[in-house]
Amino acid sequence: MSQNRTAPDATRRSERSRRAILAAAFELVGEVGYSKLSIEAIAARAGAGKQTIYRWWPSKGAVLFDAFLMLSEGETGTAALPDTGDLEADLKTVLRATAEELSDPRYDGPMRALNIEILNDPVLAADYLQRLDLPMKEIKKERLRSAQCAGDLAADLDLDVAVDLLFAPLLSRWMFRSGPLSAEFADTVVETALRGMRPAGGG
Amino acid sequence: MSQNRTAPDATRRSERSRRAILAAAFELVGEVGYSKLSIEAIAARAGAGKQTIYRWWPSKGAVLFDAFLMLSEGETGTAALPDTGDLEADLKTVLRATAEELSDPRYDGPMRALNIEILNDPVLAADYLQRLDLPMKEIKKERLRSAQCAGDLAADLDLDVAVDLLFAPLLSRWMFRSGPLSAEFADTVVETALRGMRPAGGG
Repeated sequence: MSQNRTAPDATRRSERSRRAILAAAFELVGEVGYSKLSIEAIAARAGAGKQTIYRWWPSKGAVLFDAFLMLSEGETGTAALPDTGDLEADLKTVLRATAEELSDPRYDGPMRALNIEILNDPVLAADYLQRLDLPMKEIKKERLRSAQCAGDLAADLDLDVAVDLLFAPLLSRWMFRSGPLSAEFADTVVETALRGMRPAGGG
Repeated sequence: MSQNRTAPDATRRSERSRRAILAAAFELVGEVGYSKLSIEAIAARAGAGKQTIYRWWPSKGAVLFDAFLMLSEGETGTAALPDTGDLEADLKTVLRATAEELSDPRYDGPMRALNIEILNDPVLAADYLQRLDLPMKEIKKERLRSAQCAGDLAADLDLDVAVDLLFAPLLSRWMFRSGPLSAEFADTVVETALRGMRPAGGG
């Protein structure tokens, strides 16, 4: 592949093919799980050649990562959280969207497969952390930093802990299926995290 | 098994045997994972007969659950969280202990195996929720209720969300290996959850 000598049409075809492969990988892992996911099956589902996949990715794990990256790019759009100046409203928008996505049957299977591999394989977990989790966390911290500058958050707030406090309850409820991933739950998490658990005026 | 007609010595032997089997199941699942865990291997490790295990438990899943139940009983002791009257100190004690346990190599493997099965199998997840997660959550909520009565927590606090806010960040950090499960992290989670993320005097 010498992309620099490729005509525009061929580039567009490549990009279409790349996206078809990633979408196929994402669908399939949700259907069969990671251990049964194969390059053959991805190629068949995408209507692409096995050699095309091997030319672009060294392993099925690499394909799957790019599939999740494509998804997370779609999600974050401009790679920033909304910033209307109202932190609570913005966080509710983001947590509601996250809750909705975690409840979506199209995402549930692939995300369970990914999390099983993360639990199972420390190397894949480290790769996930570097390529997906930390960049996503940075985007979230950026919004919190802007709120700190505006005086809406404590200046000495540990932003890593703050992000965990906001997002981990959704993860836990999804993992253990311990309650509905409703907009109401998302809102209560944001309100409780922002205001704290102490009585008003106390603490 | 008619325990009420069993002589005291035999009861003690049975209890010793039961605990040996549960300890063996717990160790083995950490070493080989759930899918490769077998009743044969548990029996061999525990020095017990396969028939003994089948007499007491219908499946390897049932043995493993009782192993985690035994562990959680050991943890919670009197089945209550410490209540010294100082909620923040008590929660720090519990979260530090949880963080330490999640960092313990003896527990890490078995708990990853359990969580993989929970992600994988909705039936096992429901069983886990009923038999382990909800009872543990009730114990945590009991401590928070006592703090509510003492006026240390907001009267309208959603206790389910409060428990998630306190404990889910540990789960997330452990799962993704995204940072050290230190006493400092446990303390910061408790402080941030209790006081909230707003600046002092604000909100």
